[in-house]
Amino acid sequence: MGWFSKDIATMDDLFVHTLRDIYYAEHQIKKALPDMITKATSPELKAGFQTHLRETEEHIQRLKQVFRQHGVEEKGVTCPAIDGILEEANDVAGEVDDKRVLDAALIAAAQAVEHYEITRYGTLVAWAKQLGREDCAALLQANLDEEAATDKKLTELANSGINRKAA
Amino acid sequence: MGWFSKDIATMDDLFVHTLRDIYYAEHQIKKALPDMITKATSPELKAGFQTHLRETEEHIQRLKQVFRQHGVEEKGVTCPAIDGILEEANDVAGEVDDKRVLDAALIAAAQAVEHYEITRYGTLVAWAKQLGREDCAALLQANLDEEAATDKKLTELANSGINRKAA
Repeated sequence: MGWFSKDIATMDDLFVHTLRDIYYAEHQIKKALPDMITKATSPELKAGFQTHLRETEEHIQRLKQVFRQHGVEEKGVTCPAIDGILEEANDVAGEVDDKRVLDAALIAAAQAVEHYEITRYGTLVAWAKQLGREDCAALLQANLDEEAATDKKLTELANSGINRKAA
Repeated sequence: MGWFSKDIATMDDLFVHTLRDIYYAEHQIKKALPDMITKATSPELKAGFQTHLRETEEHIQRLKQVFRQHGVEEKGVTCPAIDGILEEANDVAGEVDDKRVLDAALIAAAQAVEHYEITRYGTLVAWAKQLGREDCAALLQANLDEEAATDKKLTELANSGINRKAA
């Protein structure tokens, strides 16, 4: 974004900016997941992260389609929010030695990531509809539904015994 | 946190660390809200942010009580996640001139903040219960319920016409 001018003049500009924000975020998440897969101890958590890596790749493909449908350049803009969330996940994981406590920390970190994506996709779906882009809204809704399902699975994993054993 | 040792050994350590993370986050949000109140144009949004500032002050008081009940020092730890979320909110708001588009951007930014708090309080409630701290869980649940209600109100505001007028 420009430093000397106001670059967001319309709701359409705000929509495209936020699309580029989540596009950057999905790429950062794709880069972070292999390390989380390596660190996870519980086989269910490891498998969950592997599934989410495949889904993240699909989300990026859907976002490419939204860029094409909306007729704007496919690119990311740096998103300090996801950078901060992932930096914090990394910091905390680096402080934990016990494998079960580490699994609990990884689940919490992954849920912070999911909630960031849920809020951004929720906003983008609403804005796409307001802009009359039902086609884009449908693709963004598909990503939103998968993020919400992942968050639910992580809550189940947290309650299913991983954290309980660590406590 | 220490740079040369693993400081989180147990679930209790992880719980206290995350408590200090959200304690820092609530203080940063308290500092950020007056600027959001000033920037908001819609009277409903301005009033919503004012209510949330009062709630944030109550959340800090409840967290102080959790620290006391759990018998640990009341302090914050730097939380790069909330710093990133608030930095991004500020960056985007600085790029928007049109007042209605700015309101839409402010609602989206506030929802990103709420979702961060929702995920952290959700995790903390679960961990408090697992650690047998029902007393702490009840206070954290009260904060969680208010954050979830604020997020819901922001969605209603977004759909009630603010964004629609801007589009």
